[in-house]
Amino acid sequence: MEFVALRKKLIEDTKKQIARSVTPDLLLIQSISSIEELDRALNMLTKRLREWFGMVNPELERSITDHEALADIILKGKAKKEASSMGADLDDVSMAPLLLLAQQIKNMYDLRKEEQAYIEALMIAEYPNLQAVAGTMIGAKLISLAGNMHRLMLFPSSTVQLLGAEKSFFKHLRNKMNKSPKYGVIFNHPFISKADKAKKGKAARELANKITICCKLDYFKGEFLGDKILAELEKKVL
Amino acid sequence: MEFVALRKKLIEDTKKQIARSVTPDLLLIQSISSIEELDRALNMLTKRLREWFGMVNPELERSITDHEALADIILKGKAKKEASSMGADLDDVSMAPLLLLAQQIKNMYDLRKEEQAYIEALMIAEYPNLQAVAGTMIGAKLISLAGNMHRLMLFPSSTVQLLGAEKSFFKHLRNKMNKSPKYGVIFNHPFISKADKAKKGKAARELANKITICCKLDYFKGEFLGDKILAELEKKVL
Repeated sequence: MEFVALRKKLIEDTKKQIARSVTPDLLLIQSISSIEELDRALNMLTKRLREWFGMVNPELERSITDHEALADIILKGKAKKEASSMGADLDDVSMAPLLLLAQQIKNMYDLRKEEQAYIEALMIAEYPNLQAVAGTMIGAKLISLAGNMHRLMLFPSSTVQLLGAEKSFFKHLRNKMNKSPKYGVIFNHPFISKADKAKKGKAARELANKITICCKLDYFKGEFLGDKILAELEKKVL
Repeated sequence: MEFVALRKKLIEDTKKQIARSVTPDLLLIQSISSIEELDRALNMLTKRLREWFGMVNPELERSITDHEALADIILKGKAKKEASSMGADLDDVSMAPLLLLAQQIKNMYDLRKEEQAYIEALMIAEYPNLQAVAGTMIGAKLISLAGNMHRLMLFPSSTVQLLGAEKSFFKHLRNKMNKSPKYGVIFNHPFISKADKAKKGKAARELANKITICCKLDYFKGEFLGDKILAELEKKVL
């Protein structure tokens, strides 16, 4: 083969290999990072919305704690200052940028829901056992923290239990005065929030254990046992 | 007057006073903070968009440096992977969340423009001289840093020159090894970017000087001399 042609072929092959390197794991990680950034952005913008709208109708602003609900109310124009409010009378021009901001926030919440639905579909298709037992967001977050499913599958369950709590774990290792953390991202699992305070450590251990089994099942394309594993787990701890 | 009625009247009066306390300055400050937060959010989300889209078409991602233009291209579907690209073949389902993110970013850029137009209108209406000489965004930012126009108007021009550079100024005061900063937020004024490097300090001093005059004119509802002041400034330094 001519040298130029060989070089061309090798470049083509490499490009194909790079293209194949975009795995479902990478898509999951992009999506979960995107949701986390959306949350940070939403957090900033809703704070601003509340401060701004608080000048118009402070009583209403304080009475509604749900950010999305507040954006809705502002958009529906139900937020007009009442005669008795201590808020300022803003003309339509002054209200305009506030309405735009509320609309933006509403859009971002919608985007967040769509991205979450996407992650859920991807998780059910690729890692059904992990999705069933850990839940969509915790499962995806675990993959993201491990880097990919292959690495997550190789972790012992004690590592899975603490994924996401590295900071306080290393603090504990440096100084035994700090207690070892009981859980990382699995902390948000309903299973652990439901457990009594004294049983949370045990619940975390059991959950991490089952998650490890699910990861192995999913990685080797085993059958779907997610529902059974979940039922077992509930019997054990609750 | 009966005690209950008096109490009610006093509360009403206080509410009215609070309502009146929402000044144009506060609206300006809310808007400018909102734009700054939008910029931070846009920064995060465009980074994510680039990383994500880079998996589909890395060559195109690198060739377009403007974030808004990239979002446009992705939305118009012109970003399909070319046969020669080393990007991954994503099906429509996998492209969906990426498109949503691009749409979101596009919306945020639109919102930013509308908020900027609002600030410009408000600045021209309330502080025409400051707007003409400092420009909309720098003028609004100065008011935001000072807290309100009254305080800004009282600042000596040396303070106006350094507003927004407090951190490096105090570093200089603590340790004379660090040079004193030449300018704060006025740094972005075209007048200073146009000036030769050796003349930037002088340009900043002159600009701050004129801005101080404008603030006083605007605060006391003086006539509009913004264009003349700007012309004088250009003659002096350029």
